[in-house]
Order: sequence, then C-alpha cells, then structure tokens
Amino acid sequence: MKLLEEHIIKYGTALNNEVLKVDSFINHQIDPNLMMKLAKDIQDYFKEKEITKIVTIETSGIAPSVFLGYLLNVPVVYLKKNSSKIIGTNCYQTVIHSFTKDVDYLITCDKKYIKESDKVLFVDDFMANGEACLGAIDILKQANASIEGIAIIIEKAFQSGRQKVEALGYDIYSLARIASLENGNITFTE
Amino acid sequence: MKLLEEHIIKYGTALNNEVLKVDSFINHQIDPNLMMKLAKDIQDYFKEKEITKIVTIETSGIAPSVFLGYLLNVPVVYLKKNSSKIIGTNCYQTVIHSFTKDVDYLITCDKKYIKESDKVLFVDDFMANGEACLGAIDILKQANASIEGIAIIIEKAFQSGRQKVEALGYDIYSLARIASLENGNITFTE
Repeated sequence: MKLLEEHIIKYGTALNNEVLKVDSFINHQIDPNLMMKLAKDIQDYFKEKEITKIVTIETSGIAPSVFLGYLLNVPVVYLKKNSSKIIGTNCYQTVIHSFTKDVDYLITCDKKYIKESDKVLFVDDFMANGEACLGAIDILKQANASIEGIAIIIEKAFQSGRQKVEALGYDIYSLARIASLENGNITFTE
Repeated sequence: MKLLEEHIIKYGTALNNEVLKVDSFINHQIDPNLMMKLAKDIQDYFKEKEITKIVTIETSGIAPSVFLGYLLNVPVVYLKKNSSKIIGTNCYQTVIHSFTKDVDYLITCDKKYIKESDKVLFVDDFMANGEACLGAIDILKQANASIEGIAIIIEKAFQSGRQKVEALGYDIYSLARIASLENGNITFTE
C-alpha cells in the first residue's frame, strides 16, 4: 500500500538491520486517520470473506483492528499478554517468544470470546519470525474457530514469518513488505 | 450516557464490591460501534476545547481514544506500561499502582510525542482511586503540556479518584458513574 510505504520512509527509522521503529504513527503515537485507511484497505482485500470477528494481540494491533471491526460491524478480541486475576482460569493460552524484546509471553483468551462458529481475521502490526501469528493460530485452533485470513501492517519479508504461516495454508495480506533495513536504508519488495 | 449504562447492566458483572468486569465489550472483547459512540459523546462534551492530542495508557484506553482521535483529527499517544529496549532513554516516566492487579507499573512516554504546545485530552477506560490518571497528569506536567480535560469511560464514583483529580483543578467527564457494586448489584449515580 503506497500510502503506508510513504509513511514508513518519511517517519520510520531502521534502528539496525532487523528493527524498524514506527512509533511516531503506529506503536506509541498513533495516526488514527492512517489507521482508518489501513483498515479500509484490509476490508477491501478480504471483501469476499464473511468475517465474524477480528482477533489481534495487545497492544499495537488494537488500533487498526478496532477500525476494521467498525467497518465490518463485528467485535474485536485482543489476546492478552499476561494473565490477570480478573480474567479467570477458563481461557485458552499459549506461549510466544518476542525476538524484539527477547522475552516469552503467555498469551491468553477467555473461552467465551472465540467460538467454533467464528470466522476470524487475525490482524497484527508486525510480522517478523511469525511467532505472534503462530501463537494466535494456536489459540484459534484450540477454539476450533475458522481462520479466514491474516492481515499484517508491516511484514519483514527478509524474515521467516510468512514462510512458516503460509506453510500452514493461510492467506496473509501485508500492507507493506520490507525487503531490507540494511545500513539504515528501508526498501520494500515489489 | 444511557447507552453505556445499559451495556454495563446487560453485559457487565460485579465480581465483588470493587471490581466491575466489562471484558465482553471494553477490555478483552471490544465493541467498535459502541466505542465510536462513546468517542462522539466525549467529542461533544469537550467541543469548546481545541484539543491537539489524545493521551491514554495502554491497553484498554486505546480503543475509545483512536476513535476520538479520528473524529478530532489529532494524534493519539498511549503511555507505555513497561520500558522497552526500543523506546530509548529519552522519555518521561512515573510509577503508578494498580489496585486491581496489586502491582506497580512504570509508565513511560517518549519526549518527542508530548510537547509544551500540546492541548491534551486524557482518556482512560476506568477511574477508581485515580492512580492511573494522576500518573498521566504527572507525565503531562513533566512535558509542560496543557491538560484540557479528562474523559473516563467508567468511573467508580464510590472510590476517591475524582476527588483527588478535581482537587488539582481538572475537568473530568465520566460516561458512566458507578454508585455501588454491592451484593452484585450495579447502580449508577444520578
């Protein structure tokens, strides 16, 4: 998506060969108008699917997800990164590893909020090694929900996430695909 | 706000005399249509103010905030609950205590994203003892930003948050004010 690529070039920073900082418009400060446009683009790509629920992971997947949920008129569920004493024990859970922060997260979802009848679109801000996405797939499979597709705002195409997730048969739509961050230069795949 | 009160009665649960569970439409599953309506109500209340930025705290303040930011055409900044190795050291920070989870959080904000020229509306999902709000005020004061008002989705009016924050001279607009959760009965103030 041209507009997003322009934002990434203008406001993003390659911190090193693997980390792209976009916290001026996605994951610290959020540009809500951009988020609505990203959501419309995702809606258009998956327009043939009858989505009943958007699923994301806290925190930075929430902004694009709620606009998409608004456009599609469906609920949004965010998987929680830490169990809370309020959430109760009746939940699906799995462990994912964040390479960016080098920590393991327990992600959880109350069983009430994902049903076997749900046709889910999973949305996240980044895909790198695919850990978060594979964790979400694990949770959605535990719930026997149907996974209709995966929408990613920024894919690091030089890492292995897409390969792993496509191997499971899922359709991934990435709004921007980074080819390389080497030497501080941000380039996109065609 | 009548619609929100109806949602709380219909879908909320008083877990005990102090904890209201609303995770079916605010803080686990999100109802995006309701969020847009809440945002419109907040926009209307503060329509005389020239807001330049919405500030919230991750995670559950993000959904109403991004709709409000969209309506007002201003950026949204969410204060982060844990320092990340990506955020850098050039940030404002303060410590807040969550009584619900009984833990202290370090909240941080990159100095780039709140300026002295900003006229800020702070938005959060809950106000109870006022700890999160006072922490956000602390950060905004460190930045010398102007605090134009505070919007809270659900205020526990039987706790001391409002009293503490109003004592500092701020205008708090709460969309629902819980009078009591005693014996599992949810009642609102007039």
